[in-house]
Amino acid sequence: MTERINPRVLKGFRDSLPDTEKTRKGLIGILEDSFESFGFLPIDTPALEYEEVLLGKGGGETDKQVYRFVDHGKREVALRFDLTVPFARFMATHVEEIGLPFKRYHIGKVWRGENTQRGRYREFVQCDFDIVGADSPASDFEVISMIRRSLMRLGVDSFKIHISHRALLDQLLTYLNLSSEKEEILRGLDKLGKIGLEGVKKLLLPVTGGERWKELKEFISAEGTPSAVVDRVSEKLGSDSAGVVRLKEIIQLAEESGMGRGIVLDTSITRGLDYYTGVVFETFLDELPGIGSICSGGRYNNLTGLYSDREMPGVGASVGLDRLIAALQVLEQLPDVSGSADLLILNMSESLAGYYFSMADRIREFGVRVEVFLEAKKLGRQFQYAERRGIPYGLLIGDEEYANGAFTLKDLRSRETFRLDSLNALVKKL
Amino acid sequence: MTERINPRVLKGFRDSLPDTEKTRKGLIGILEDSFESFGFLPIDTPALEYEEVLLGKGGGETDKQVYRFVDHGKREVALRFDLTVPFARFMATHVEEIGLPFKRYHIGKVWRGENTQRGRYREFVQCDFDIVGADSPASDFEVISMIRRSLMRLGVDSFKIHISHRALLDQLLTYLNLSSEKEEILRGLDKLGKIGLEGVKKLLLPVTGGERWKELKEFISAEGTPSAVVDRVSEKLGSDSAGVVRLKEIIQLAEESGMGRGIVLDTSITRGLDYYTGVVFETFLDELPGIGSICSGGRYNNLTGLYSDREMPGVGASVGLDRLIAALQVLEQLPDVSGSADLLILNMSESLAGYYFSMADRIREFGVRVEVFLEAKKLGRQFQYAERRGIPYGLLIGDEEYANGAFTLKDLRSRETFRLDSLNALVKKL
Repeated sequence: MTERINPRVLKGFRDSLPDTEKTRKGLIGILEDSFESFGFLPIDTPALEYEEVLLGKGGGETDKQVYRFVDHGKREVALRFDLTVPFARFMATHVEEIGLPFKRYHIGKVWRGENTQRGRYREFVQCDFDIVGADSPASDFEVISMIRRSLMRLGVDSFKIHISHRALLDQLLTYLNLSSEKEEILRGLDKLGKIGLEGVKKLLLPVTGGERWKELKEFISAEGTPSAVVDRVSEKLGSDSAGVVRLKEIIQLAEESGMGRGIVLDTSITRGLDYYTGVVFETFLDELPGIGSICSGGRYNNLTGLYSDREMPGVGASVGLDRLIAALQVLEQLPDVSGSADLLILNMSESLAGYYFSMADRIREFGVRVEVFLEAKKLGRQFQYAERRGIPYGLLIGDEEYANGAFTLKDLRSRETFRLDSLNALVKKL
Repeated sequence: MTERINPRVLKGFRDSLPDTEKTRKGLIGILEDSFESFGFLPIDTPALEYEEVLLGKGGGETDKQVYRFVDHGKREVALRFDLTVPFARFMATHVEEIGLPFKRYHIGKVWRGENTQRGRYREFVQCDFDIVGADSPASDFEVISMIRRSLMRLGVDSFKIHISHRALLDQLLTYLNLSSEKEEILRGLDKLGKIGLEGVKKLLLPVTGGERWKELKEFISAEGTPSAVVDRVSEKLGSDSAGVVRLKEIIQLAEESGMGRGIVLDTSITRGLDYYTGVVFETFLDELPGIGSICSGGRYNNLTGLYSDREMPGVGASVGLDRLIAALQVLEQLPDVSGSADLLILNMSESLAGYYFSMADRIREFGVRVEVFLEAKKLGRQFQYAERRGIPYGLLIGDEEYANGAFTLKDLRSRETFRLDSLNALVKKL
């Protein structure tokens, strides 16, 4: 006997079975349609790149998570761990050919050797969209309006897009004389969603002291309409603050375009220590706030700095596909993917198999998904197969039907049967 | 000044720019629709797997091309080099949950560190479809009929699907007392398309000698209708030959279903030293025979042998996407992907930007792809952008149009303009 190999998959990696894969493809299809309706264009980049290109010459926090190795040609290579760094490299290479402004989306797998304990995967799909070469409030707002439209297309109506601007907190920390504690404070604030205000207080009180914590707390807890919040922030930081000016412009665009509902000015969001330099956003579902942001992003002012002297401002966001799928599942709003086909032609006689194939081919031309059962097994087994695959109708063609060009259609849920005298009648019935 | 990093990609890897990526997505979409119309279901598997799972315990010819390394957890891992081996592992794992027969398709990237000199890439997309758990002539024929239908959906009408059966050559070589030279002979025959009959003769004459070369040559050069060829083969090998019996059944199905045209019985094809055990097929375009087979496959009788005692027969094929794209390009039958959007709303005044966004959102609801130009730059630059992106129409809304709820639509190719008094009139015009 041959020694068998255990057919296991690596920890943190997953097979995608048909129902999961159809769901994923369905959602991606909706997102792609939405992105394309805004004139965003798809691109792709290699999964594998020079390590130096992906990680720069130094090395940071992410590096430990990156899959890297030496290839056959002794090149130091790495698997992409996000779609932003490859996009920066892509723009540095192709900007002349593509022209600016450029709006792109990119949906693809990325790999990170992360700790898998918290339900994280080592292979997952990212779904990014960005506008580069435009630094206007309109381009910030376009990303917001695309997030909004994409969620609505997915059937989600109750959500809030939280926006802020990185300059606000920077300015406040300067004002509070806390600039040198910035990293620590941003890292603390970033945990607000997970550990709550009390948790953040415990973390930051030793850094800020009581007075300044009070001011910080008031700042990040500001509530009300976006206009009201921006006015209060303006009182504190001055109406000529770059962050205040830009946010006011964005809020105005939202109100004037009738898309103000669902936009929240939330001075607590920072997107951590990321490379964002302007507006930042996160998106929460009203009914599932605990799941975290399902679409986050912001503005950065120098995408391609690592590779090129040419400055390229950009703004974009990324949909967390796994998180979105989990949320839509809870909300029972996943696209319906049941059924491998609409119709199963039962195999009643080997001698009629050619006729079955010919009918299947003709019925498919009407947009009906048709399977032919591929062996003349007992009908009971064929019906079981239809049930397992979620196929709603069976088509019975025996010698009598064949002789008369007729069909017996069976609704496999109600078990009703219908006699149909022609292909047209059949297609009409379906 | 910061030291810049050269934004190069690895040899054998490619960026996919918007036109290329849209073309690829368009073709994949058509293939997916076709596969789904036959009841085939999508799956996915990880890009990275245990090396042992992908390569078995030994190691063969392919191994040198495989990207493999040791990961953070000291696991020996490898990037998938095809979609067949992961599918075998997948079936060994999930067969109980999925049930048989199972028809799946899988479109995804694979990686091979091949010699790139012959225009081969180290990262490319494979597009596989298989039926497992059925060993009937009908399942062989279903794969053929799906290749046929998929090409027709792509707009390709003139092609030939060459079929044969692995048992035929095996039997002939036994009859000619050449069984122990089988590997060498199959390897030689596999080069027929590239080097022609004279080239193969040079390779094989030293092995076979003149008499047996003549018999072999006659055998692989048989021409005529599939029925005529199978009859001649049957005379030589006997009508009870397993290969002859199966091919007759398949040809009968093709004729009875009206899909016989375009099917060629070609005893020269073998699919090299692959794991095929039954029917094999290759697909050639009438107008571009030199490009080679654009869809090849066959029957194998033990997909999961490496991982499981359970025998699982299957039949399937794989579309060579790069080759298909190259061919459709020559035939001028690539799907039209020009234009990032159907309409560009020109930015004539910052103060109307909110209105532009609101109109864009409303026009999109009619299925029109709409871009808003994101800065109030000179109109000349905005028109240049439209031209570069292949957008056919511009929408001009200045203060006068805004005040009257009207639109000026400009056909950017003919430079004609149209005054439209309402959103309905505009959408109708588009």
